[in-house]
Amino acid sequence: MPDYLSDHVHLSDDGTAVVILDQTCLPNRTIYRTLRTAKEMFDAIHTLQVRGAPAIGICAAYDLYVLAQQISARSAEDFLRQLQGQADDLCASRPTAVNLSWALARMMQTAAAHDTVPEMLSALHRECLAIHREDIAMCRAIAEHGLSLIRDGDGILTHCNAGPLATSRYGTALGPLFLGHERGMHFHVYADETRPLLQGARLTSYELSRSGIDVTLICDNMASLVMKNGWIQACFVGCDRVAANGDTANKIGTSGVAILAAHYRIPFYVLGPTSTIDLSCSTGADIPIELRDPSEIKEKFYTEPMALPEVKCYNPAFDVTDHSLISGIVTEYGICRAPYTESLRAVFEKKRAAQSLSDEGRK
Amino acid sequence: MPDYLSDHVHLSDDGTAVVILDQTCLPNRTIYRTLRTAKEMFDAIHTLQVRGAPAIGICAAYDLYVLAQQISARSAEDFLRQLQGQADDLCASRPTAVNLSWALARMMQTAAAHDTVPEMLSALHRECLAIHREDIAMCRAIAEHGLSLIRDGDGILTHCNAGPLATSRYGTALGPLFLGHERGMHFHVYADETRPLLQGARLTSYELSRSGIDVTLICDNMASLVMKNGWIQACFVGCDRVAANGDTANKIGTSGVAILAAHYRIPFYVLGPTSTIDLSCSTGADIPIELRDPSEIKEKFYTEPMALPEVKCYNPAFDVTDHSLISGIVTEYGICRAPYTESLRAVFEKKRAAQSLSDEGRK
Repeated sequence: MPDYLSDHVHLSDDGTAVVILDQTCLPNRTIYRTLRTAKEMFDAIHTLQVRGAPAIGICAAYDLYVLAQQISARSAEDFLRQLQGQADDLCASRPTAVNLSWALARMMQTAAAHDTVPEMLSALHRECLAIHREDIAMCRAIAEHGLSLIRDGDGILTHCNAGPLATSRYGTALGPLFLGHERGMHFHVYADETRPLLQGARLTSYELSRSGIDVTLICDNMASLVMKNGWIQACFVGCDRVAANGDTANKIGTSGVAILAAHYRIPFYVLGPTSTIDLSCSTGADIPIELRDPSEIKEKFYTEPMALPEVKCYNPAFDVTDHSLISGIVTEYGICRAPYTESLRAVFEKKRAAQSLSDEGRK
Repeated sequence: MPDYLSDHVHLSDDGTAVVILDQTCLPNRTIYRTLRTAKEMFDAIHTLQVRGAPAIGICAAYDLYVLAQQISARSAEDFLRQLQGQADDLCASRPTAVNLSWALARMMQTAAAHDTVPEMLSALHRECLAIHREDIAMCRAIAEHGLSLIRDGDGILTHCNAGPLATSRYGTALGPLFLGHERGMHFHVYADETRPLLQGARLTSYELSRSGIDVTLICDNMASLVMKNGWIQACFVGCDRVAANGDTANKIGTSGVAILAAHYRIPFYVLGPTSTIDLSCSTGADIPIELRDPSEIKEKFYTEPMALPEVKCYNPAFDVTDHSLISGIVTEYGICRAPYTESLRAVFEKKRAAQSLSDEGRK
């Protein structure tokens, strides 16, 4: 994987700015943005220059550290108050991404645990690097578990983008493919272009191709024929929210891929960190579906509109895949199988046990 | 339905030119082309200004009548020889569309059945109008049979374009909706945009909307959610070739729609004339799948490419829907049900009987 993919969000060498690869310019232009002001940082997240929940979280943590250095405060309390203001402003850049508020809250807690501004700054520096490092480790663990599900030479179909650009390194759904590639394995990846925003074309085919992994781009409606041709041994997709019974919200079209996979008897796996599992949501029916603007379907990317102004569009950003269609949910703590109501609870037990062990170790 | 949709291919008032609505300019511009020369006629079909197998057949018949009037011949034989040359040239404009060669052969047979050039011209005039009239009657019969399958208020999902613009009037898959609309019925149509060439967005949503039929445009990958929402009571699609066992080749993505419909227990109907049923093809495995250029996926319609030049694409124009997924095949002679090997043969018996009755009537 080229360095610029595994490290597309990072601190500048002197630590006074955040450097990001602008994803809105991909695949045609590799443009880095140096973010120094609160406005630049807000806009970078708001306009999707950085996207993918984990990547947004990492970026926001770095942002807050950089902004912290610019604060001129009369006291530690004044510093914390100003920092909280910056965090609140940043958090509004994309209120639905749970990792954004999570990362900012974690940074604020870190600062608040210290008494002097120099100590706070030093702790914030360590914490944003830790958030980034932990994301890499989490993706790596998901990749390792996912890799156990496939064999050298397999054909893998994926939908949308859940690769390095959406996270830190490896990605979630694409993690096993990058990890296997590092170990000399060869996969044939089929990437759904993923209308209407084309994350599969613009991002997934880009990062796989640039990393030397065999990838073939298809339109979403070609997945059925590709499966029928016998070219797919497994489907790997990411997730935006997993309910307690295993129902999974992910990019629009994911449920269709799962139904096709079931028809052709191809295993369908969801890959994501335990942080996207929401045990307070009992089934997928509790997950709200975001509806977006018709212009994304009729106009975006085109030289002229592809439908009349008066034509209505239905443009849901996500759909929910029924748990009965999912062969396994791959987390950083292992692979959950049906019945998910039990296996998802069990993986959280495992997480708690691992964390308390790690806490003990630190004491 | 606006007149310009039901009559998008016709003779000029003085009969010396063919007038077509240029479909490559839809939905943004309503531009008519007046075709007088062989080159203009060839280009109109070759560049898809006219598309849809039945519409191409009608257009080619009119073309040949117009060209016939321009022939300066020393004898009836010389006239026929020159006419055959024009027919051969036109036929090469799109060799895969079976209706093109069929219409031209029928026009040549008509001319050859007469002795003098004036008689031939007069017969050619009658024959091109008859070909157009028969297509309207055929679409009307398909529409009538199809309408018996749905109820007022139903939601119908369709894929690609098999409406008036692809035929003469009514269309095949959309025929029941236009006919029902004329009778005061109300349907809610969901049109798949149909990547990569967007016939659903550019043509289907256009002709339904302009005709006052409720239509909602969706991306292909949204069909699963629309079905899950309970909004679809039947799927209606056209066909490019039906094998003797009912396996049906149609626009890429059709097989996926059929699998989703089966999953959600929604009836899935194929609508088309008996001329697209190929009893010499025993199953869908005998139907070749046309592969098209990657530029259609990566570049067409866009302001800039959506994937890197080195990214491979798989771009099949059609797929084959297994007969087991099809609830019925609606022809101008009635609705065929499984087992199709028997019902499709039976519909041809019915066609032969109807034609011999009609031949008797003429004697």
